[in-house]
Amino acid sequence: VGDDEASVLGSFGIDDIRRAADRIAPHIVRTPVQTSIEIDRIANTRVFAKAEALQTTGSFKFRGALNKVLGFEPGALTRGIVGFSAGNHAAAIAAAGAIVGCPVVVVIPQGAPAAKIANCRAWGAEVIPFDPARQDREQIAAAVVSQRGMTLVPPFDDYDIMAGAGTVGLDIADDLHGRGVIPDVVVVNCSGGGLASGVLTVMEHYYPSIQKYIVEPAGHDKMARSLAAGMVLSNPPGRTTLMDGINGPVVGRHPLEVLRRLNVTPLQVNDDQALRAVAAAHEHFRLVVEPAGAASLAAVLFGQTDFAGRNIALVNSGGNVDSVVYRRALQLADSAHG
Amino acid sequence: VGDDEASVLGSFGIDDIRRAADRIAPHIVRTPVQTSIEIDRIANTRVFAKAEALQTTGSFKFRGALNKVLGFEPGALTRGIVGFSAGNHAAAIAAAGAIVGCPVVVVIPQGAPAAKIANCRAWGAEVIPFDPARQDREQIAAAVVSQRGMTLVPPFDDYDIMAGAGTVGLDIADDLHGRGVIPDVVVVNCSGGGLASGVLTVMEHYYPSIQKYIVEPAGHDKMARSLAAGMVLSNPPGRTTLMDGINGPVVGRHPLEVLRRLNVTPLQVNDDQALRAVAAAHEHFRLVVEPAGAASLAAVLFGQTDFAGRNIALVNSGGNVDSVVYRRALQLADSAHG
Repeated sequence: VGDDEASVLGSFGIDDIRRAADRIAPHIVRTPVQTSIEIDRIANTRVFAKAEALQTTGSFKFRGALNKVLGFEPGALTRGIVGFSAGNHAAAIAAAGAIVGCPVVVVIPQGAPAAKIANCRAWGAEVIPFDPARQDREQIAAAVVSQRGMTLVPPFDDYDIMAGAGTVGLDIADDLHGRGVIPDVVVVNCSGGGLASGVLTVMEHYYPSIQKYIVEPAGHDKMARSLAAGMVLSNPPGRTTLMDGINGPVVGRHPLEVLRRLNVTPLQVNDDQALRAVAAAHEHFRLVVEPAGAASLAAVLFGQTDFAGRNIALVNSGGNVDSVVYRRALQLADSAHG
Repeated sequence: VGDDEASVLGSFGIDDIRRAADRIAPHIVRTPVQTSIEIDRIANTRVFAKAEALQTTGSFKFRGALNKVLGFEPGALTRGIVGFSAGNHAAAIAAAGAIVGCPVVVVIPQGAPAAKIANCRAWGAEVIPFDPARQDREQIAAAVVSQRGMTLVPPFDDYDIMAGAGTVGLDIADDLHGRGVIPDVVVVNCSGGGLASGVLTVMEHYYPSIQKYIVEPAGHDKMARSLAAGMVLSNPPGRTTLMDGINGPVVGRHPLEVLRRLNVTPLQVNDDQALRAVAAAHEHFRLVVEPAGAASLAAVLFGQTDFAGRNIALVNSGGNVDSVVYRRALQLADSAHG
């Protein structure tokens, strides 16, 4: 291990995540870890599903954004904060900005779910839409930074963001400890890698022999390819999926480093599997989950990997979903029942 | 106060509910109390909504059934337990029976939501359907008691059941205390009165000046009429509502006594208001709530009473809803948005 790599590896770990947990605790919903005999029957295993769709703004993203914003020097907040995202990170920084009392600008792709855009506006943020096929969201955000003096809150490629997301894992470990359960497997959906790197760091710390999986949309497996190549790769532009929340263009450099070290196994799910998982979460967890947020549940319930007889921890990570997509998920499940 | 009344009033109170909480705690989901800036904007007030649809079996009913069953002498459980209900109490005793390891029979009206019947069967219960227009559910349950030697678990007219349901109120008070919030108003949906009498007893204890409301389906206001008449009254048979969970035929004698003493104000909501509340809980709480379970939210968001500027505690009490009804709620909300 060279000096460079050691310094990177040494700079993110369980202590960062614990500090984040202490910092954000007063503002965070302690979301339950859910179990269901019906889900366990479908999966032929025991599932422990963190209901993070119940978090403030409807996704885990609030944890990372809040950890970042609470760590800023007061001077960095005077002119406000700006972020770009498919929607959930945007709402998260809108809410984090509202808590510290600073202006917020969010850069969101046209065509993002209306629920996500409404979520940002409800928290008082200014929304700047862009065309993802023709415009670069980082450039738009950079222009806001230079023109208005705002501070960028990155969506995932940042240790504070990763540490905030990782507090989901601390909650899970604490809950499972209370039940006397040792998880054999952890499955986390993955886009830029903030949630996966944070949660899997915690799981590795508490359960050194746990099997660690990440889940991406089929055909949008930028992290799987990045892990294989050992370098940051992108998804090809222009492809769509109902899992919009984990269809960002590129993986994060820091999350990639952490996930390589953790020896994770990548999985993929398609839109149909994600919709069926949305319906299963509806019926058996009474939880509203968006397709991207249900990707890990989809992999466990409907994927190729056989998890029979294992204790599985997963995260239902977000619940901001357009009504038309949700109704389609329920209809799909109804026709499968009938 | 005569001796009779004093003995009745003395036999149910905060200590019963605290004992129930201790007894059931190891098996209960600590459901969150949810807040939402969007909900607060619609209601022009601050709403604290207990997400009891996330409880085991998908409703608060599990608390009362479990408290009852854990209090039985072991001998009473040998032959098993039986109950009758519109569905949520049935699933609750199915789960409580599974926890103590005894056979369970549930008597459920034909036409109850498929989700509720499936819920009972998933927990291993035997389901006996009946025709509510022509058969008496209490007689069917009584026949099971006499023929099979099973023990009846009543749905609401019982101090142990009321105490178990009342633990929802303890959770709310504990959560609000942690936030430094004093509620001005509490609103609880009501059918037989188990949940309302339990929760409002707790609220009265901790917040003596709180305003206490119960909510019934419009045209099915058996508790409002019973309170006015000072005696147990029924709903006229044959009327239907989407709020099937709070459309039982009759109020409980014990809950009625408690609610009379607590000086509650009855409210009513119609099916349209309940559906709009289901959609609001979906969008802003990411919680699946059935129409009956959303009755208190419906009264606060869409009812006649002006709650502006108050801190309101309410209970989203159950989430077992047929997919067709749920999709209708989402469509209704979409057309209102559009």
